[in-house]
Amino acid sequence: MPNGAHALMQTLVDAGITTCFTNPGTSEMHFVAALDSAPAMRAVLCLFEGVATGAADGYARMAGQPAATLLHLGCGLGNGLANLHNARKGKVPVVNIVGDHATTHTQYDAQLQSDIETVARNVSPGFVRTSQSTARLCQDAVDAIAAARGLPGQVATLILPADVSWGEGGVPCAPPPPPRPGAADDSTVLAIAQAVRAGGKAALLLGGQALREPGLRAAARIAAHSGVKVFAEVFPTRLERGAGLPFVERIAYLAELAGVQLAGIEHLILVDAKAPVSFFAYPGRKSDLVPDGCTVHPLSTPAQDAAASLEKLAQALGAAQTQPALQAPARPGRPRGKLTAEKVCKAVGHLLPENAIVIDEAITSGLMLAPFTAGAPRHDLITLTGGAIGQGLPNAIGAAIACPDRPVLALIGDGTAMYTLQALWTMAREQLNVVSIIFNNASYSVLNVELERVGAEKVGAKARSQLDLTAPVLNFAQLAQGMGVPGVRATTAEEFVRALEHALATPGPHLIEAMVPQSLSGLKRKLLPWLLRSLPSLPPAVARALKRKIAP
Amino acid sequence: MPNGAHALMQTLVDAGITTCFTNPGTSEMHFVAALDSAPAMRAVLCLFEGVATGAADGYARMAGQPAATLLHLGCGLGNGLANLHNARKGKVPVVNIVGDHATTHTQYDAQLQSDIETVARNVSPGFVRTSQSTARLCQDAVDAIAAARGLPGQVATLILPADVSWGEGGVPCAPPPPPRPGAADDSTVLAIAQAVRAGGKAALLLGGQALREPGLRAAARIAAHSGVKVFAEVFPTRLERGAGLPFVERIAYLAELAGVQLAGIEHLILVDAKAPVSFFAYPGRKSDLVPDGCTVHPLSTPAQDAAASLEKLAQALGAAQTQPALQAPARPGRPRGKLTAEKVCKAVGHLLPENAIVIDEAITSGLMLAPFTAGAPRHDLITLTGGAIGQGLPNAIGAAIACPDRPVLALIGDGTAMYTLQALWTMAREQLNVVSIIFNNASYSVLNVELERVGAEKVGAKARSQLDLTAPVLNFAQLAQGMGVPGVRATTAEEFVRALEHALATPGPHLIEAMVPQSLSGLKRKLLPWLLRSLPSLPPAVARALKRKIAP
Repeated sequence: MPNGAHALMQTLVDAGITTCFTNPGTSEMHFVAALDSAPAMRAVLCLFEGVATGAADGYARMAGQPAATLLHLGCGLGNGLANLHNARKGKVPVVNIVGDHATTHTQYDAQLQSDIETVARNVSPGFVRTSQSTARLCQDAVDAIAAARGLPGQVATLILPADVSWGEGGVPCAPPPPPRPGAADDSTVLAIAQAVRAGGKAALLLGGQALREPGLRAAARIAAHSGVKVFAEVFPTRLERGAGLPFVERIAYLAELAGVQLAGIEHLILVDAKAPVSFFAYPGRKSDLVPDGCTVHPLSTPAQDAAASLEKLAQALGAAQTQPALQAPARPGRPRGKLTAEKVCKAVGHLLPENAIVIDEAITSGLMLAPFTAGAPRHDLITLTGGAIGQGLPNAIGAAIACPDRPVLALIGDGTAMYTLQALWTMAREQLNVVSIIFNNASYSVLNVELERVGAEKVGAKARSQLDLTAPVLNFAQLAQGMGVPGVRATTAEEFVRALEHALATPGPHLIEAMVPQSLSGLKRKLLPWLLRSLPSLPPAVARALKRKIAP
Repeated sequence: MPNGAHALMQTLVDAGITTCFTNPGTSEMHFVAALDSAPAMRAVLCLFEGVATGAADGYARMAGQPAATLLHLGCGLGNGLANLHNARKGKVPVVNIVGDHATTHTQYDAQLQSDIETVARNVSPGFVRTSQSTARLCQDAVDAIAAARGLPGQVATLILPADVSWGEGGVPCAPPPPPRPGAADDSTVLAIAQAVRAGGKAALLLGGQALREPGLRAAARIAAHSGVKVFAEVFPTRLERGAGLPFVERIAYLAELAGVQLAGIEHLILVDAKAPVSFFAYPGRKSDLVPDGCTVHPLSTPAQDAAASLEKLAQALGAAQTQPALQAPARPGRPRGKLTAEKVCKAVGHLLPENAIVIDEAITSGLMLAPFTAGAPRHDLITLTGGAIGQGLPNAIGAAIACPDRPVLALIGDGTAMYTLQALWTMAREQLNVVSIIFNNASYSVLNVELERVGAEKVGAKARSQLDLTAPVLNFAQLAQGMGVPGVRATTAEEFVRALEHALATPGPHLIEAMVPQSLSGLKRKLLPWLLRSLPSLPPAVARALKRKIAP
């Protein structure tokens, strides 16, 4: 019989888990040694655990099934925690394999000993298990895989003691059955259909699985038939969009703006989504963004089939044959002159290739990305589901490995990029088709906004310096080159467009550093016009209301 | 009355916590805004939380009192966990201030909501508290500071909800009294003295506070008087060493070698140290390194005064007036020719300035550092206490800020450096006198050794590739420049020596990338001669025993 590691490898591959993002140490050496016994398993080395976990997240978002991670004890899991948090909030399946000391060794409290299960519970509340024997290991793995695949998808953590891994007597196990979620039940659908028919302003709020094409099309038919507004949650796990697909307006990050978007809604229908809340709390403001007097109707939960539930609602409303409104093809023109964040987004909209995967972690600099790419060729958009920055570059690795034939564009803020910049090395090693665009505005720009929003009005030099990245200014082109990724700096729109054209035409990874001024230097001074332009669908009356609300 | 953040800032400063390593987000904005109200508080921005926590660790090791960290919710704490683990294992005081959502906001499970206390317990088992009101906040902070300062020192985590921070009615609190540890009690001391006098081979194992000058001198007097051997724990938090101080032999990382060092010891006397155990477990080998038949005698616990306990033992043995053996000044010559890891260590020994702080996270490449610097001018050595790599560069920040007049040299492995490389930016921003020496051998070299040690004998190409950093080879000189630190590559000993001379003579941070071959490509083939040379005090009989044991 094989040892535990070999049997585990076989069990993973049999369950369709054929990619493992690794950052191993001594306690994982038997798992590493077993890699060569499983030709179907691709092991992708990452130089930091946060890269491995973020790559597993990005992979699962695009592949539709989980990857494994291989992490080194509690500290390795800790380093990977932030991106596992993003996966958790995005309901993304991930199977963590966390090596541990041999079961006989833990009693000695050696240097690397720590309470792994405790750390794991933060991101894996639904499944944390330390495998206790080689004979049980593969069943534990199957249970972890079943838990991860959900629905809803989740992060499952299997802790693998070294002696369970090296012990003889492993027994590969058959894969767990795939989940078979049902649609919303009839009474729920009928009650919601009745509320919609009764009149009053209604909106669908789509999240999770509902933001893929089948759900979007069903929602768009409902919208066309019944005049229901369709929103997407603020940070979608994966949103299919572009020319030929229904357009969906995302709830804004800024609660002030979200309040305007949702104003007057009397029925809010949730589809694999939560009722909208403010990202942070602010003194004197409500966190709950559901308008007063609005009734919230959960149509389907994350454990149900979102698209089938929307189809049922469309049928109940008589919208089964309605033609949905689809986004017409449209691209912005070629930007010119001094580079700004807006022009970078415009250039992306101008050049976005067919079937791209766009990862948006550009924070303030990406505000104009949505309107400029709305009519671009069909693409997938991946966003920062859990708010823990450092997600984008690792996600790009996973997406590129899941979809080797699709170009990946990752738009990343400078502050954000520095959390998991080691991802560039893996892109170079694996020669992934990823174009990383770093907005270098030499600032934690969003925090300048937040500093005002939280009401911290009297701000001195020391406080300001905490948000400032000007001394020294990072050189991302050089950082990329240091990790084997061709990197260039662009200071004009022409340079940027040329660099992007070259990067898209040349296989392998590329990094373009866009030197841009801060897009937001004060909420009240500059933010408003940007926001208004970023929501092209905003009716003039709403825009006026917004202006009164934000910029008194 | 001030708001919570202002009162907290005052309380920290009054307690002598005048440095805060920060990576803030929105929920910490009131703390940030309060920085300008406390001129004594230095806020040091880090681009990643693992840098902030490692810097706080390095600071406390050298300053002898804690710094604060400022971290953003559970994910920020997660990113900082590995270096807090190292601090915990090193009994180093750290006061974490982890911002949280407002208490009114947590119920909504917003994107960044997670269970912070659960994560914190991994590194702060002794003190985790979420402050519940502005009025109580400063007392909570004082309790956290008291817990952190110990003895033993520990990581204390104070979770600060945003509304507790922004709320009015903060009440600064007086600092907690400093700890006043006592010495070992008389009966313990007398029993140990009796065991030593009764004959039989005895050894002192010094850890923690015992490795500072007073403890080392007392131990050396005992050694000179009674023939007791003196060992240091394998990874000291802070070891004072060099010419004019007693030499102390560190227990080896490799259990095989540690077993040889400890062979024949009949009485092992622990002073602020744990009984030695193997770093990892290996199939068929014991984890407990205490020789069979050896009696373990705890002289003093981490909660006691180690030096005073050793003084008491010296007096009980009649060694109070004995002259201790002190290390004579000695430096290796200037290395020449093709660069190797050994020559880098030799050059460091050749040039080490007076009163330096040396941080050793060079893993395999640093094996020869100890013998080559043993007779160098007096210096402090900081090591990887918890085994969670990525400690060294952040530690260097903290050490340089705690001791602005002392040169800091950080010797770091290439794999290791990539965990927290963002530290270089903070070195540049604060213009710290740190020379970072990166050993670029394009490999997780230690894992090649471990792969053999764990008995994974048949290793294929995929497994080997998991330990290989050659495609692409990292360029640390370029990476440094990208973060504003002058960086150079050295491929010959002459280049390295020139670069080190220049770096030591020129204020501000420097990075030297030492291009070296792997020092260890196989335990049995190459390791042994290295190890034998690295323990110059090894008697020939022991060396022969070692040779039989490791290289059959």
